[in-house]
Amino acid sequence: MSSYFEEIGQRAQTASRRLIVFNTEKKNACLRAAAQALVESGEEILAANLQDIAAAEAKGMKASLVDRLRLTVPRIEAMAEGICQVADLPDPVGEAVLETVRPNGLQLRQERVPIGVIGIIYESRPNVTADAFALCFKTGNAVILRGGSDAIHSNMAITKVLREALASQGAPEDAIQLVEDTSRESAAAMMRLRQYIDVLIPRGGAGLIRTVVENSTVPVIETGSGNCHICVDQAADVDLAVKIIHNAKTQRTGVCNACESLVIHEKIAEQAIPAICQDLLAAGVEIHGDEMVCRLIPQAIPAVDEDWGTEYLDMILSIKTVTGIDEAIEHINRYNTKHSEAIITKDMQAAEQFQQQVDAACVYVNASTRFTDGFEFGFGAEIGISTQKLHARGPMGLVALTTTKYKIMGDGQIRS
Amino acid sequence: MSSYFEEIGQRAQTASRRLIVFNTEKKNACLRAAAQALVESGEEILAANLQDIAAAEAKGMKASLVDRLRLTVPRIEAMAEGICQVADLPDPVGEAVLETVRPNGLQLRQERVPIGVIGIIYESRPNVTADAFALCFKTGNAVILRGGSDAIHSNMAITKVLREALASQGAPEDAIQLVEDTSRESAAAMMRLRQYIDVLIPRGGAGLIRTVVENSTVPVIETGSGNCHICVDQAADVDLAVKIIHNAKTQRTGVCNACESLVIHEKIAEQAIPAICQDLLAAGVEIHGDEMVCRLIPQAIPAVDEDWGTEYLDMILSIKTVTGIDEAIEHINRYNTKHSEAIITKDMQAAEQFQQQVDAACVYVNASTRFTDGFEFGFGAEIGISTQKLHARGPMGLVALTTTKYKIMGDGQIRS
Repeated sequence: MSSYFEEIGQRAQTASRRLIVFNTEKKNACLRAAAQALVESGEEILAANLQDIAAAEAKGMKASLVDRLRLTVPRIEAMAEGICQVADLPDPVGEAVLETVRPNGLQLRQERVPIGVIGIIYESRPNVTADAFALCFKTGNAVILRGGSDAIHSNMAITKVLREALASQGAPEDAIQLVEDTSRESAAAMMRLRQYIDVLIPRGGAGLIRTVVENSTVPVIETGSGNCHICVDQAADVDLAVKIIHNAKTQRTGVCNACESLVIHEKIAEQAIPAICQDLLAAGVEIHGDEMVCRLIPQAIPAVDEDWGTEYLDMILSIKTVTGIDEAIEHINRYNTKHSEAIITKDMQAAEQFQQQVDAACVYVNASTRFTDGFEFGFGAEIGISTQKLHARGPMGLVALTTTKYKIMGDGQIRS
Repeated sequence: MSSYFEEIGQRAQTASRRLIVFNTEKKNACLRAAAQALVESGEEILAANLQDIAAAEAKGMKASLVDRLRLTVPRIEAMAEGICQVADLPDPVGEAVLETVRPNGLQLRQERVPIGVIGIIYESRPNVTADAFALCFKTGNAVILRGGSDAIHSNMAITKVLREALASQGAPEDAIQLVEDTSRESAAAMMRLRQYIDVLIPRGGAGLIRTVVENSTVPVIETGSGNCHICVDQAADVDLAVKIIHNAKTQRTGVCNACESLVIHEKIAEQAIPAICQDLLAAGVEIHGDEMVCRLIPQAIPAVDEDWGTEYLDMILSIKTVTGIDEAIEHINRYNTKHSEAIITKDMQAAEQFQQQVDAACVYVNASTRFTDGFEFGFGAEIGISTQKLHARGPMGLVALTTTKYKIMGDGQIRS
């Protein structure tokens, strides 16, 4: 196991050092060739995908999950289109972050450079293979992908096509490598590959992310866990609250920026709770509420302590009433995953306090939490949503896949 | 042990949440009060320091290390002065990193905010206690300090004074806490305090840093290990090389930005090696060289493989000859610690290649590696020098102690 990973690591590092001299034009040409190759190799990829689908059905996988796994010609075209979109984005590599001349004449330039080797551990959907490759390659990084066992044949086929496309362009094919061993041990081995992997990004459920965070010696960027709250302040426009909460809870439930819990000011509770809950119940949402909620809404289920910390990812919502904005903030900071939080209010002082004191990547006033997304923020792409505070916080675009380097020009300066 | 740390963590988190509302003026007033308190409590601090000095001498500590431990009135004044300098620096908290209005009218503002709770594990010198507090407090963070056992009485006295000064200003005294247990177990417990500590910064030798990196579940910023090279290109000005190498090797040997190894182009070796080595031997530097070096310099000791990866932190230097710039870069990327590297050359194409392809935080052309330092870079202060690629790379000033938050203003936007 360890010599297998040693070799993968070395290959990735060698590839990343070759990539460092690729300019934007060259990288974009490779990406476009890769996109074209995906479309041209559609049959090969679909055949591999059928193996995954057959295995999934044989083991009785839920139809909705089988659908996430399934590739079709339009889905392959969408993957290719996604790669071309990344090619069209501005390249952050080479940008100056800081330029200054020191009193001793040293010229200091802090420049964005590739990170080097990026490891990504992910589950199911095979399109992540192409997406992650495109974002890493655009920023001059080599990537080591370790997908889930369910999509292994699809991932292998996609990776083969992408590697061949790179080779045809004179680019290092090891800029993308797939770990074909999908055992727990292979993920564990990757987490110890500190000598070769500069950053590890887990994409998937809370369990995967926790395992990586607990066991990795490679620096990790935590992504995607979202126990997002909407606070309905005493000065809220209730109609606006109903509309925003409906969107944040029901528009898509299985995503990290969906709303999982409401925190409602007691002074507006009697008016807001019935309005909000009637709308949600009609949409098929199950309400887990505190005493006040259960008194007002007969269909509500009494919430238990565990509810406050639960990311349902389903048509379920918890609701708590609070005595004021301070208690609301305290409750949210205690139970949130530092992803996205919102307040509905016409009181700009309350809004400001909420935005300052709630500890999260994204804090909204009078808008749906569902906007936390690289595309919605205008980054043109997204490798994930960071819920940690180091390096990148919130939706991660291309810049999050770069680091910086100081280039310093002198003419004989020495330190006295 | 764990409930003790649980309490420290909770206190720090509570303090950090109170600090979030402190504006720059208030924070600066607290820092100035802390500086004044240190000077006024000089006697108390010196008395505590004498206990540490006595214990150090009793166990036969080297005189140079005892000196690092020793406090005097001027050294306490220098600590206070350092705190006042931090108060004078611009406050990065609240700065906008990105401001934009999306097509749907959402106003997006990415703003610098405190990280929250910072843990610092360090060795010996008690002035780090005051320095680290000042930088963390200025950026609105609470800090948990875990110093070495040698300085425990000094650190306790300094911390007590700083906490009292904070309390006198109506600030949370738990903005600084010292872990008084200096056992290995206490450091290990701190590394698992993920729920409360947002980032851990080890400051000390390579052994400490390795232990933290291997065992911490709290995100770590690696600092301070520097196996720095100077490459003498075939197009080097040899006199300039002699001067810069002399400075980088001998001006201070125990620091991470000192030069530990030379990589010399074989085409200039016969001219450069004698000139450089005569100068260094005269200064008392021991040379560990490859075959070519040993042939030219009778006093040189044959280098073994281990030499290339060794950070001597002493009057010792290794020298390797290479066939060209490519081999130089490859050698450096294999053995360096990604800290600071330099090339001496008049060939700007070689300089550019070296700056692009050498993987390090700081890459110099025709200047001493000794400039890698927060003060020399104009940051006004430094919490350490990051040798990792995530979050911060190179000298870390105040900005490295902040993260960002997206504040988003809407008027009812929902996602379709």
